[in-house]
Amino acid sequence: MTAFDTLDHLLGARFATGLAARRQHAGNEAHYDEALPDAVAYPETAEEVAQILRACAAGGIPVTAFGTGTSLEGQHLAVTGGVSLDFSRMNRILAIHPEDMNVTVQPGVTRKELNDALRATGLFFPVDPGADASLGGMAATRASGTTAVRYGTMRENVLALEAVMANGSIIRTGSAARKSSAGYDLTHLLVGSEGTLGLITELTLKLHGQPEAVAAATCHFDTVAAAVDCVIATIQSGIPMARIELVDEMMVRGFNLHAGTGLPERPHLFLEFHGGPAALAEQVAGFRELADDAGAGGWQEAATTEARSALWALRHGALPAIGALDPGAGKRTYSTDVCVPISRLAEAVALARQEASTRGLICTIVGHVGDGNFHCGLRFDPKDADQVAQVLAFSGALAEAALRLGGTVTGEHGIGLGKQKYMQAEHGPALDWMRRIKMSFDPQGILNPGKMLPPAP
Amino acid sequence: MTAFDTLDHLLGARFATGLAARRQHAGNEAHYDEALPDAVAYPETAEEVAQILRACAAGGIPVTAFGTGTSLEGQHLAVTGGVSLDFSRMNRILAIHPEDMNVTVQPGVTRKELNDALRATGLFFPVDPGADASLGGMAATRASGTTAVRYGTMRENVLALEAVMANGSIIRTGSAARKSSAGYDLTHLLVGSEGTLGLITELTLKLHGQPEAVAAATCHFDTVAAAVDCVIATIQSGIPMARIELVDEMMVRGFNLHAGTGLPERPHLFLEFHGGPAALAEQVAGFRELADDAGAGGWQEAATTEARSALWALRHGALPAIGALDPGAGKRTYSTDVCVPISRLAEAVALARQEASTRGLICTIVGHVGDGNFHCGLRFDPKDADQVAQVLAFSGALAEAALRLGGTVTGEHGIGLGKQKYMQAEHGPALDWMRRIKMSFDPQGILNPGKMLPPAP
Repeated sequence: MTAFDTLDHLLGARFATGLAARRQHAGNEAHYDEALPDAVAYPETAEEVAQILRACAAGGIPVTAFGTGTSLEGQHLAVTGGVSLDFSRMNRILAIHPEDMNVTVQPGVTRKELNDALRATGLFFPVDPGADASLGGMAATRASGTTAVRYGTMRENVLALEAVMANGSIIRTGSAARKSSAGYDLTHLLVGSEGTLGLITELTLKLHGQPEAVAAATCHFDTVAAAVDCVIATIQSGIPMARIELVDEMMVRGFNLHAGTGLPERPHLFLEFHGGPAALAEQVAGFRELADDAGAGGWQEAATTEARSALWALRHGALPAIGALDPGAGKRTYSTDVCVPISRLAEAVALARQEASTRGLICTIVGHVGDGNFHCGLRFDPKDADQVAQVLAFSGALAEAALRLGGTVTGEHGIGLGKQKYMQAEHGPALDWMRRIKMSFDPQGILNPGKMLPPAP
Repeated sequence: MTAFDTLDHLLGARFATGLAARRQHAGNEAHYDEALPDAVAYPETAEEVAQILRACAAGGIPVTAFGTGTSLEGQHLAVTGGVSLDFSRMNRILAIHPEDMNVTVQPGVTRKELNDALRATGLFFPVDPGADASLGGMAATRASGTTAVRYGTMRENVLALEAVMANGSIIRTGSAARKSSAGYDLTHLLVGSEGTLGLITELTLKLHGQPEAVAAATCHFDTVAAAVDCVIATIQSGIPMARIELVDEMMVRGFNLHAGTGLPERPHLFLEFHGGPAALAEQVAGFRELADDAGAGGWQEAATTEARSALWALRHGALPAIGALDPGAGKRTYSTDVCVPISRLAEAVALARQEASTRGLICTIVGHVGDGNFHCGLRFDPKDADQVAQVLAFSGALAEAALRLGGTVTGEHGIGLGKQKYMQAEHGPALDWMRRIKMSFDPQGILNPGKMLPPAP
């Protein structure tokens, strides 16, 4: 019996080899080519995931996990064929523990589904990449978003995992205790491993209290440099910003075009503050003083819950808004993702703007600048070889600059397909020790082959 | 040339085989037997550490790192002989980056030395185990302390490492960027690995702003259960406590005996609040409301900096104060270290008190209860076989209870020698994957043999 026969027997209609299902798992929101898996499996339990992995291990067949397909570095693409393991049927919230401020979920639950379920508890899960991604995928790519500056990334918010390893072994890592010194930290090893070391089948996540009071606002600056200086001063002053997002003038133009807003086309900060009423007033006043020092104008508070939601929906709509700047059919958006120490942020942003201008590229900048992380959105026509070359050269120059400034080539999108070429430069001799882990955990190389680790020299 | 000849040649007077130096590295503050290394090496650079490891690898000689010798589970004891690698000469603060809120240090710098050096910067490093431990040792054992409830443990506060691996390879992990999705998280793998995977030769640590305002206070409760209920309510309410420490009536008696304080011999909470002036007042008022609901009395603020320092010096003097309760020559203190989800804390503490009482043991309880972590201090005479058996049985019963309640056998002391027997129960099949990492990183088993991982079955 072949591995596919075994899987067909095991999963019945939940094992699909038809072109329609395969095509649904071949695309991506970034700039990568389509990659067709040979089949799609829809497990419902960890035990089924284990059986799938055992069958694929026996047949030497690659297995690539699929959450919502929203990863930005092609992590979910089955680039060497094999099975796309789709977690959408493992989408139950298993247990909410308000008293311990945690929740246990299956990997297919999305962040919005989770927060809908939490609404009545007074708690929320803060990590918010733009997309309504699956929590398993967010853990696997060490995702973050606009609130990481206050609440941390998936690295800080995953307490415990269940995972299925390449040989079908089901393990549990971590616990609901808020700290532990017991043994090697397998939880953090799996978080960010992009499905190359094991497949996450359950997550216990830290929750946070819904803030007693919230204020959101926008303001604008004469230059991006002035906005960045304001961010640096704010972070250094210790004001516990819940969100502090840079939006450059080109991105504002995109928002105005796409969403019909009428924001002044100048560099903006989008802000949110969380706290008790008195603490909140203290934070807002402290920030405004620093913003005034940086020459800010146009202070606009989003006074209602609806206005706040609209503000963040606008921000999360950056990807389509970039498209609106340069709509032509077939064009795509390339997003960079460097993250640098906050003291080098102004330098990194200036370098990006200079590089884009030199290369004649349409470039927006948005960023989780409180963390030193920002994204350049570059429009390009995949059929225009020169433009593609310019975009890749831009990305390479920015990645090298980030490393030179003591940062990383990816703050939150991950390595996947596109950033492998920088792994040696970023990690140096440490890369060999990553390879040792991969060899030891997945000697056959069936888990998401072609991702994260560049081919050994 | 033997390995020791090589090391003698390399280090000269910084390689000691005399009994005096070896005995200085043989003891411990916990209850373990002395363990004499065969030699002590005092490297001054990562390159020297690499040469030591290469020489020892060639000779199959164990290497055990030594910071200040204050670990509580014998992590620094060379139980199979070999070289004690003493980091005390690698004690330089390499670079303070106030604008990025981080610092780069050598592993032999102690936490107090670091905070002395930071005083003028407006920043501080919060992690505070009782002892003035070395920062390398604190990272290696994933240490924490009284402020973890607000600022996290070493897990949350190490940004980047340099480490020397078993084969002498020098690697760098992480970066000064506050987040990254680039590759496997080797930083978190090394943090808490107790010198069994690699030796930390440099650390970049997150710093925090010195709070604008601080308030510290104590209050007491009728019962430990009432104090614990107050803690649970406080954490659930989201008040960002900087410190919230439980001290039971027996521990208070120890403090009074040892330090001459006159505290009422009742269960206490020792508290600290950090924030802007308005936020601080809000926090204190919010806490006092919850404390009143739990029947608290005797609210005492430590109004001056000196009074605050005295309060926390008292708390950090728990180990000698436990000794004062039962002073006999040759007696020792056994400290447990379970950590449970906060909702199960009252149950765990009650069980500990019941077990101690049943077994006729003198037992104090102090704890970082905001994290669900508490320590029972048990006095015993190592020559009294029955008492030793009772202490070990107590510890076993408490560890089993912690696992049953969804917690961990060690919140902050680590596994070392004493907790290995619980590794299988705590980790189940995941233990095999920890062994894989150890086998892959240190196939000869020269790094701190006899620690953390129990012998394979």
